[in-house]
Amino acid sequence: MSQKKVVLAFSGGLDTSFCVKYLSEDRDMEVHSVLVDTGGFSDAEIKAIEERAYSLGVKSHATISKTDDYYQQCLKFLVYGNVLKNNTYPLSVSAERIFQAIAAAEYAREIGASAIAHGSTGAGNDQVRFDMAFRIIIPDAEIITPIRDLRLSREAEIEYLKSKGVVQEWHKAAYSINKGLWGTSVGGKETLTSDQFLPESAWPTQITKTEPEIITLTFVHGEIKGISGLATGDETFANPVDAIRKLTELAGPFGIGRDIHVGDTIIGIKGRVGFEAPAPLILIKAHHTLEKHVLAKWQMYWKEQLANWYGTMLHEGQFMDPVMRNIETFLSDTQSHVSGKVHVQLAPYRFQVLGIESEHDLMSSVFGSYGEMNNAWSGDDVRGFSKIASNQVMIYEKIREHNS
Amino acid sequence: MSQKKVVLAFSGGLDTSFCVKYLSEDRDMEVHSVLVDTGGFSDAEIKAIEERAYSLGVKSHATISKTDDYYQQCLKFLVYGNVLKNNTYPLSVSAERIFQAIAAAEYAREIGASAIAHGSTGAGNDQVRFDMAFRIIIPDAEIITPIRDLRLSREAEIEYLKSKGVVQEWHKAAYSINKGLWGTSVGGKETLTSDQFLPESAWPTQITKTEPEIITLTFVHGEIKGISGLATGDETFANPVDAIRKLTELAGPFGIGRDIHVGDTIIGIKGRVGFEAPAPLILIKAHHTLEKHVLAKWQMYWKEQLANWYGTMLHEGQFMDPVMRNIETFLSDTQSHVSGKVHVQLAPYRFQVLGIESEHDLMSSVFGSYGEMNNAWSGDDVRGFSKIASNQVMIYEKIREHNS
Amino acid sequence: MSQKKVVLAFSGGLDTSFCVKYLSEDRDMEVHSVLVDTGGFSDAEIKAIEERAYSLGVKSHATISKTDDYYQQCLKFLVYGNVLKNNTYPLSVSAERIFQAIAAAEYAREIGASAIAHGSTGAGNDQVRFDMAFRIIIPDAEIITPIRDLRLSREAEIEYLKSKGVVQEWHKAAYSINKGLWGTSVGGKETLTSDQFLPESAWPTQITKTEPEIITLTFVHGEIKGISGLATGDETFANPVDAIRKLTELAGPFGIGRDIHVGDTIIGIKGRVGFEAPAPLILIKAHHTLEKHVLAKWQMYWKEQLANWYGTMLHEGQFMDPVMRNIETFLSDTQSHVSGKVHVQLAPYRFQVLGIESEHDLMSSVFGSYGEMNNAWSGDDVRGFSKIASNQVMIYEKIREHNS
Amino acid sequence: MSQKKVVLAFSGGLDTSFCVKYLSEDRDMEVHSVLVDTGGFSDAEIKAIEERAYSLGVKSHATISKTDDYYQQCLKFLVYGNVLKNNTYPLSVSAERIFQAIAAAEYAREIGASAIAHGSTGAGNDQVRFDMAFRIIIPDAEIITPIRDLRLSREAEIEYLKSKGVVQEWHKAAYSINKGLWGTSVGGKETLTSDQFLPESAWPTQITKTEPEIITLTFVHGEIKGISGLATGDETFANPVDAIRKLTELAGPFGIGRDIHVGDTIIGIKGRVGFEAPAPLILIKAHHTLEKHVLAKWQMYWKEQLANWYGTMLHEGQFMDPVMRNIETFLSDTQSHVSGKVHVQLAPYRFQVLGIESEHDLMSSVFGSYGEMNNAWSGDDVRGFSKIASNQVMIYEKIREHNS
Repeated sequence: MSQKKVVLAFSGGLDTSFCVKYLSEDRDMEVHSVLVDTGGFSDAEIKAIEERAYSLGVKSHATISKTDDYYQQCLKFLVYGNVLKNNTYPLSVSAERIFQAIAAAEYAREIGASAIAHGSTGAGNDQVRFDMAFRIIIPDAEIITPIRDLRLSREAEIEYLKSKGVVQEWHKAAYSINKGLWGTSVGGKETLTSDQFLPESAWPTQITKTEPEIITLTFVHGEIKGISGLATGDETFANPVDAIRKLTELAGPFGIGRDIHVGDTIIGIKGRVGFEAPAPLILIKAHHTLEKHVLAKWQMYWKEQLANWYGTMLHEGQFMDPVMRNIETFLSDTQSHVSGKVHVQLAPYRFQVLGIESEHDLMSSVFGSYGEMNNAWSGDDVRGFSKIASNQVMIYEKIREHNS
Repeated sequence: MSQKKVVLAFSGGLDTSFCVKYLSEDRDMEVHSVLVDTGGFSDAEIKAIEERAYSLGVKSHATISKTDDYYQQCLKFLVYGNVLKNNTYPLSVSAERIFQAIAAAEYAREIGASAIAHGSTGAGNDQVRFDMAFRIIIPDAEIITPIRDLRLSREAEIEYLKSKGVVQEWHKAAYSINKGLWGTSVGGKETLTSDQFLPESAWPTQITKTEPEIITLTFVHGEIKGISGLATGDETFANPVDAIRKLTELAGPFGIGRDIHVGDTIIGIKGRVGFEAPAPLILIKAHHTLEKHVLAKWQMYWKEQLANWYGTMLHEGQFMDPVMRNIETFLSDTQSHVSGKVHVQLAPYRFQVLGIESEHDLMSSVFGSYGEMNNAWSGDDVRGFSKIASNQVMIYEKIREHNS
Repeated sequence: MSQKKVVLAFSGGLDTSFCVKYLSEDRDMEVHSVLVDTGGFSDAEIKAIEERAYSLGVKSHATISKTDDYYQQCLKFLVYGNVLKNNTYPLSVSAERIFQAIAAAEYAREIGASAIAHGSTGAGNDQVRFDMAFRIIIPDAEIITPIRDLRLSREAEIEYLKSKGVVQEWHKAAYSINKGLWGTSVGGKETLTSDQFLPESAWPTQITKTEPEIITLTFVHGEIKGISGLATGDETFANPVDAIRKLTELAGPFGIGRDIHVGDTIIGIKGRVGFEAPAPLILIKAHHTLEKHVLAKWQMYWKEQLANWYGTMLHEGQFMDPVMRNIETFLSDTQSHVSGKVHVQLAPYRFQVLGIESEHDLMSSVFGSYGEMNNAWSGDDVRGFSKIASNQVMIYEKIREHNS
Repeated sequence: MSQKKVVLAFSGGLDTSFCVKYLSEDRDMEVHSVLVDTGGFSDAEIKAIEERAYSLGVKSHATISKTDDYYQQCLKFLVYGNVLKNNTYPLSVSAERIFQAIAAAEYAREIGASAIAHGSTGAGNDQVRFDMAFRIIIPDAEIITPIRDLRLSREAEIEYLKSKGVVQEWHKAAYSINKGLWGTSVGGKETLTSDQFLPESAWPTQITKTEPEIITLTFVHGEIKGISGLATGDETFANPVDAIRKLTELAGPFGIGRDIHVGDTIIGIKGRVGFEAPAPLILIKAHHTLEKHVLAKWQMYWKEQLANWYGTMLHEGQFMDPVMRNIETFLSDTQSHVSGKVHVQLAPYRFQVLGIESEHDLMSSVFGSYGEMNNAWSGDDVRGFSKIASNQVMIYEKIREHNS
């Protein structure tokens, strides 16, 4: 009888290494490991993960490159919508994980797997993201989650692997780090408390720049297409992914974009996580400032409503809900005028948006400046406006007085 | 025949000085000037303004102290709601002006004035705030706005005053500054462009502190009641107004809370204004962080919706709309658990919320920590959750595939 | 060793009768049955249910009367908020079930039960409402759901009961009916399709009135306090629950308030259910009309937002979420002026709100009637209003043209 | 010197007839009258209006046919969004007027007019709609509003016209009627009170059908494309405008779609207006029911939010705001699955949606029916769902108890 085919979302760490052995030997399955690259891995890391997979005995290993899709189908909308969860967190891990889960599920369907596995524990958001994507895309496949189900300790996993002949130094880092295109998360120790901040040494990118630097970001229809500066020269990017990388490289050594977010996990408990995400924070603030100049008031309002929702659903693994596509269409439709330059000062631990230039700037002095009279309207016009705009409350108050 | 009684919102500047003379002499009215103090004036300033009023020939001058009301009836809710217009501006001037307008109108009604005047030009938000408050509170009074209606230049006003015997050096500042309890606005020169930032010298509070400092803010039911720190000692405040003043004093010399906001004015044009508002920015971010620990997810969501709206209406002079009272009731109701301490690091140009302590903290390790399993639920529970939570989209996708 | 104490939410039907036997005999537990009366049972029914419970062998049976609480803590807010799920369904069953679940859980806690059971199947909303209320109120109790877990057929349940000596004719109704204070639901046959409507005979209340009748409803601060009419006389109600019953009695025989709702169940599938709910539909439409006269525009807007959300969370068993209390506070706060009379015509299958009278009516002819000029403002005022109100789009269009 | 060219939005009634004479003779302008047909006029009416224009002495008269644009650029979205103002009024006049105003303004720009006139009074919504459209589309043109500015009585207008040789019987109807493609409004007498309903005789379409009739509406991507029924036969419509007309013809004689709406006018007072709008009410309810079957939960939610806003802005003359285009894009994007048949019973004064058929129906019995178990999930899955979904409130309550 043929073995059952299982696709395993594989990262090369202790948990998913355990899964390979457990699935292939204890469960007697044919393991096909898959690594979904959304821009967080170097070529060397990708190669090392592949080698480890084969050394553990997978039947096949695939690396699926999804970085461009990740930007085009997700990150782009986080910029359009200026999405920061609770005005803080750029959803660095949330976005990446759901994308990886979807790609793994599609791969499983493609190769005809009858089971699909992930190595998440039962205590976080990722398990739900994987579960949901698997269930939606390949609903008939069995979902296997050895780490969650067996509830093994780290030590037990190491012991098990040793018993299978996998002898290796499993480095226990002080912090759990997840590095991705849209930011790096840092969890552990202080983030498990409510009152302590991460120490300088915990941040993956250490501070090496101290002299402030001014850069100019060029947006075209809401997308970052250029970065220039004295130190930087002028660079244009056909692919915004490259601009994000460049910006990370420029701003990271300033320690920009570090913070700790505490928020609601999908499973109802509060979770606290540190992150450093210089590119998302700068891009979003710069983009938002540009929008404040070129969009009309109610466009800003409704963008914020929809984008806030978009971020929450993305965070909670609901990326495949059809309303998400409708929101993306809305957000894209608002970006037709969001083109121009944004000047940003980078400095240690902080950045400052200095100003913008855009041919769509509604703060055009041609039509009157704030604080200065012009000929487009008269004082009497405003007087009339104020009168009519206060009509209802005036009537409301008169009736209230009359009745009291 | 007796003269018509007019109440004039008086600040002692060129525009309202012109108004006194114009109303009393050209319009032959009995001028009662009023200064509404919402916490932005020193005693010396208040006295100087009173003296100027009488020297210009007002029939009476009144100083109405509204600082506590301003906090209790307005600022408090801006903290409860974490209100920053477009995630940027704490509404420093917006809030103050509408409060001053309301107090002036109530005063006019009280003394039986048949007219009421303000010195705003026809190019900003303040005119609408004054117009609306006057119209709602004392609807039968004539509203007189000499500066807006006559459209005189600064020079013409000085000339006119000189002709009336008022000879004085009218200092033309490089920037127009509005100092208030909830922040100081800075307008002029660079803020009239879209692309330039204010120079260091333009900021009213110059930077004199460079060594980072940690303080702890104590909130009780959403209100700031204590500040402590190594350099500061422990201070408790019966009146949050004093805490706001103290925080301004502590954080201002770091240059914290400076930014430029561009946004939609009530009259439809875009306006750009610099501000330094260390206390509002620190209080709101600290309060928000505390809330992220003690409130449930949908409380955060709906607070944000309502508070955002509250801020917009406040900004646009719609403070008297009855929905504002309903929103205040909602916001107050959410604060019952928002008590605890927030640790904040102050540093040049920036601050960092470090963490919180609260007995209402939902991130209680008793009920399981993010990332660590516990006994309140099993992996199977989450598996079931994910399955049910993905049901609709799973069905949606199956039907879509079936139809395609 | 002592038996484990279990509280069972008991209705006297086949499913919960099975549960009594199963829990006491197969599981060897001490069964305490409880019936929570939210206004849907007659005294005779309550008595019959009690007798059945004891005849089945429960250790104790309690009837908890929650009708007034149900109105004061829930239905009242559905009226304040004009809550109709998807503009259709008054949440007749949703509201009742969560209330019953909460009361059963509180009872279990009170008597120190270590388990709690309900008879819901695994295919509807009610199971989740029971599960959630139990889990929140008495989290350490085991939740036992025999019908859901054993997945027995109706026939198997009857067979099992017969084997335990319970021999009885279990009437299988053509439709599953749930009669409550806030409406009666009707499910079965046609409601399991998407395209068929319920036949006349399926509706519990048959039509016996054909002559239109006019009644007047009196609301005080949003609550129904009086009903009068030619045929009815004048009746005032200290307790709105009595008014709801009276209105049901008056309007039911017209066949008013019948419809079929299809909507999203908590478990992600679509559910379709018939209902007849004359009192809720008339009260809500009448109350809404009164509000359109006495509330300001943005009060209406935000009430609708919050009430819509309230209805959805109530429907989904999230009644205990703290945001629900905040929303209730908001809704209550909006009702201070919602007092007056509403005239309603009742007719076969339909009703028509005819008009209202209220001293808080903002449509006061004193301040100008729609369509007729008055002295509160001039044509020039409106001209000014229009000019300022169109400023931003005018500028937007000019810039767009300039750039194209 | 050449005369100033003015475009006048002309309806042939007393007010705009007065305007022709006043503009051409008293103001010595070259009057170009324009009638914008959005589907509310018969050919005979159009011809009569043209003849009247010339007989009054206009330089030119143009009839602009905008019915298809009206549907494609506006009504379509009101159906997509199920827009009923305050859940009542289909915006019959609001939508039509803004469309007419825009077309008139575009015509004025096209023929190079330097002024543009409308005949609205100063007491309603229409004046603002005209003012705003004129100001946005042709901002440099003078806006002339003789009726609003001169505040003449009806008698004075007739007298004036007589003095200019226009002698005619100006019929004063008991009610002011506005007949359009999207419904007919009825104002006057009772609608000026708050408590009275319109009498049978006031409704333009009298009731001539008494026997209930079942029809089936076919929607394709949200648009009405077919109507069939026993009495009707099967009809398909390439142009939804024809379907709307047909539906009006079928349902009008039942007296379906009559109601009185009271709401907030743009100028802040409350306005009350009767309307009969059988086609909009049936189409929207049918479309909404279809959507409840084929759309996912959050699509319904966000559609409602955006459509509600869309309706309000349309009502208030803000149709040209760019956010309206973004909302239209969103709404269109949601309609890809909104195809199917809806069965509707028509009866005197009411209609009932009976059910729907659609291949996109999410209430597919293939995936489990509400109330019946199936194999897509188990009772344990729901148990897990309930546990996780109640986690936060469970923790919240535990902490609350602990602290109290």
